[in-house]
Amino acid sequence: MKIIPIGVIHTPHKQATGTPLQPVFAQGTQGTVELFPEFVPGIKDLDGFERIWLIYWFDRASEAQLEVTPFLDTQTRGLFATRSPCRPNPIGISCVRLNRIEGNVIHVLDLDMLDGTPLLDIKPYVPAFDAHAAERIGWFGTVKGIDVTADDRFETK
Amino acid sequence: MKIIPIGVIHTPHKQATGTPLQPVFAQGTQGTVELFPEFVPGIKDLDGFERIWLIYWFDRASEAQLEVTPFLDTQTRGLFATRSPCRPNPIGISCVRLNRIEGNVIHVLDLDMLDGTPLLDIKPYVPAFDAHAAERIGWFGTVKGIDVTADDRFETK
Repeated sequence: MKIIPIGVIHTPHKQATGTPLQPVFAQGTQGTVELFPEFVPGIKDLDGFERIWLIYWFDRASEAQLEVTPFLDTQTRGLFATRSPCRPNPIGISCVRLNRIEGNVIHVLDLDMLDGTPLLDIKPYVPAFDAHAAERIGWFGTVKGIDVTADDRFETK
Repeated sequence: MKIIPIGVIHTPHKQATGTPLQPVFAQGTQGTVELFPEFVPGIKDLDGFERIWLIYWFDRASEAQLEVTPFLDTQTRGLFATRSPCRPNPIGISCVRLNRIEGNVIHVLDLDMLDGTPLLDIKPYVPAFDAHAAERIGWFGTVKGIDVTADDRFETK
């Protein structure tokens, strides 16, 4: 199982410290998805979508830790109950807003990943598939103040 | 960029033909996620979540095709505007309902992937991060009848 970059995500976030934790905390942050030219036929019809999933590689995350203290908590949590980047397979998913497409460049909003992040996949966001109510949200239900940016705890040193 | 399986997803779906296209079309379909024992410390706190993302490898998908005729349409569409499995990086994401956890086995509902699918990651589903309205849903907006199961068009022969 090998993966390949299909493009690069360009964002204003040069280092983990100060980067928004999620697109919801990065409202309006502009950037571009540069798709490598050979994949351009695959984005036909994408411009009809208001939102898209970016699937990407946390290329600057430290090695996997199965227990972490997430940014939004002060207690140690199981990694898979968090969205921390230091995962056995450091794959991130972010739902961003699509602005416009010019050739192989997709202009998007609400970017929460580091500049230069390798892109693995794009999928259309379809609310019937992806948007669900969930009353039980584990430890997120106890989050009080929202610390909206990261620090360098999960970054390679 | 190498990925490793961290477990196996056990479902009732033995072949592509007849498999639901999405969890929303697989309501109540039971199965289990068998996490390899070394990763069990990572699922601490996961039982507090009503829904989880399963990130997995489409291990039986045919090679990447940049233009496809998706199951829900009769026209050719750009691959990245579809959820078809034949992707350059054959990574799938499904939001499923968590039932209960017993040791390294996570009992889940609404499974839409093939039996034996390699698991890459688990993330908690957090509506504030993942559930969004989107009025513009591209060609999905023209889907009339819902053909709720797959056929073998994207399966390796």
